[in-house]
Amino acid sequence: MILTVTLNTALDITYRVRELRPHGSHRVSEVTERPGGKGVNVARVLAALGHEVTVTGFTGGATGRELQSQLAGTPGVLDALVPVAGTTRRTIAVVDELTGDTTQLNEPGPTVTSAEWSTFQKTYESLLPGVSAVALCGSLPPGLPVGAYAGLIRTARTAGVPVLLDTSGEPLRRGVAARPDIVKPNTDELAELTGSHDPLRGARDTRRRGAHTVVASLGAKGLLAATPEGTWQATPPTHIPGNPTGAGDAAVAGLLSGLLEDLPWPTRLTQAVALSAATVLAPVAGEFDHSAYEELLGRVTVTGETNAA
Amino acid sequence: MILTVTLNTALDITYRVRELRPHGSHRVSEVTERPGGKGVNVARVLAALGHEVTVTGFTGGATGRELQSQLAGTPGVLDALVPVAGTTRRTIAVVDELTGDTTQLNEPGPTVTSAEWSTFQKTYESLLPGVSAVALCGSLPPGLPVGAYAGLIRTARTAGVPVLLDTSGEPLRRGVAARPDIVKPNTDELAELTGSHDPLRGARDTRRRGAHTVVASLGAKGLLAATPEGTWQATPPTHIPGNPTGAGDAAVAGLLSGLLEDLPWPTRLTQAVALSAATVLAPVAGEFDHSAYEELLGRVTVTGETNAA
Repeated sequence: MILTVTLNTALDITYRVRELRPHGSHRVSEVTERPGGKGVNVARVLAALGHEVTVTGFTGGATGRELQSQLAGTPGVLDALVPVAGTTRRTIAVVDELTGDTTQLNEPGPTVTSAEWSTFQKTYESLLPGVSAVALCGSLPPGLPVGAYAGLIRTARTAGVPVLLDTSGEPLRRGVAARPDIVKPNTDELAELTGSHDPLRGARDTRRRGAHTVVASLGAKGLLAATPEGTWQATPPTHIPGNPTGAGDAAVAGLLSGLLEDLPWPTRLTQAVALSAATVLAPVAGEFDHSAYEELLGRVTVTGETNAA
Repeated sequence: MILTVTLNTALDITYRVRELRPHGSHRVSEVTERPGGKGVNVARVLAALGHEVTVTGFTGGATGRELQSQLAGTPGVLDALVPVAGTTRRTIAVVDELTGDTTQLNEPGPTVTSAEWSTFQKTYESLLPGVSAVALCGSLPPGLPVGAYAGLIRTARTAGVPVLLDTSGEPLRRGVAARPDIVKPNTDELAELTGSHDPLRGARDTRRRGAHTVVASLGAKGLLAATPEGTWQATPPTHIPGNPTGAGDAAVAGLLSGLLEDLPWPTRLTQAVALSAATVLAPVAGEFDHSAYEELLGRVTVTGETNAA
């Protein structure tokens, strides 16, 4: 069982319109909805890979009920969300049919009280003994302490459960200092954390700050891993056309899957990059195509070196 | 008891953003929601005026449940909505904080099956004996026959219940031929129906087509009524600044209220125009300010004449 934590869950709604014109009136031709927030997306990919996953985080109001009802229909995903008095946020992606361009509207989400945060921490601690890895994903909702992820990392380490962190800004900085097993920043997040725009230098600096392994996502250029065993970069074949929504979450799912199977790093990176590319290629944002994934596995290039013993 | 029919109910959501930019990402600073669709708006104004109102129409899915939960919190409004398998639509109004301009996104709403339409007709017929007036409001959802309103008008007339129709296009044309007591087109709807851009000429023509009384809404210029007793125009004082959303629905509520009290037409029109203007002035779209309404009642101008006996 893998546990994913999404403190800022969302119901992700996609609208198709002909072309968004400010101050106009638009008939939405198609509405799709799915449970969202980074950790929920990671859980869906892990479940599609055949893993059992528990999702926790917060849920509230009518939108939270709808999110939970849709999660209940996702095979392999168990719901351990903690109720809050506020209302779970919606995100609306308005896709222009003419160009495929997307306009994003994000609701603010509930403010979490300190009592709700305490309840969450107890739930999290009670779930840890049954899990083989935990992923902490996404932004913090209003009301939570900036060191929230750092605390959750320490609790996981005390329980002996490996922990992956995927967040940004000050929660990332504090989280890295709590010594997580893996952090997965993108190049912007890495530069903000370390001040370096060179991903390799930034990744190595992040390891010195406390992270055991750093896997930096380089967008279309794949993943760069700085680990105790060595340094590798995995690159997808050519440019992959499509929708990059959820590609980072698919990479996190690939890294967790490789962690559980204790695969060598070059293999883990290959799987994560292929999953990420298969997600970009998929017609539905955040889903991935199994046959595209299998085919892409053979076309990912890995370069790098094992550290001297 | 007044009955309002909203065949295309909606959950009306308003988002405030700094400024909507196509293909950008926006943080929504404020989210408000209320039950919507024209007949639901009319019911809310009638209830605020002290009338008992029953709302019927269709409801479905998670959005329908949320709409009904919010309706249950509206004093004076009874819920007699008929369940459908599809999902009630959301409408999203994105308001720019900088300019107050609004961008509208309207979901398509459920397709109503012929079995669901039959169930609705039976519910409607069973409600009629207990009501003193019925209002048929708004567009038809996919799946309904274009003569849907015409049928509902005939059923109301058979039951001896006065009926007001507020719709457009072919449903209006068919509805007028079924001889409703009042129709309330705007100038565009009147021109489409009759081919005349002169509201007085159009209103008189609409009477010849079957409507007992025609009340045309002239936007900021008020209301024009062509009735068996005479012809009147009621005009609000100067230009009313504000949000015109729901002003037409407030006018319908005023006309129904005046019908129940059997007020002379000039008084009915005065009340309807004052309600409409008080709705434009209100800070929340579709609500109205009681003290503004009372004050505006004394400032509406009515011109016109009683027919020769």
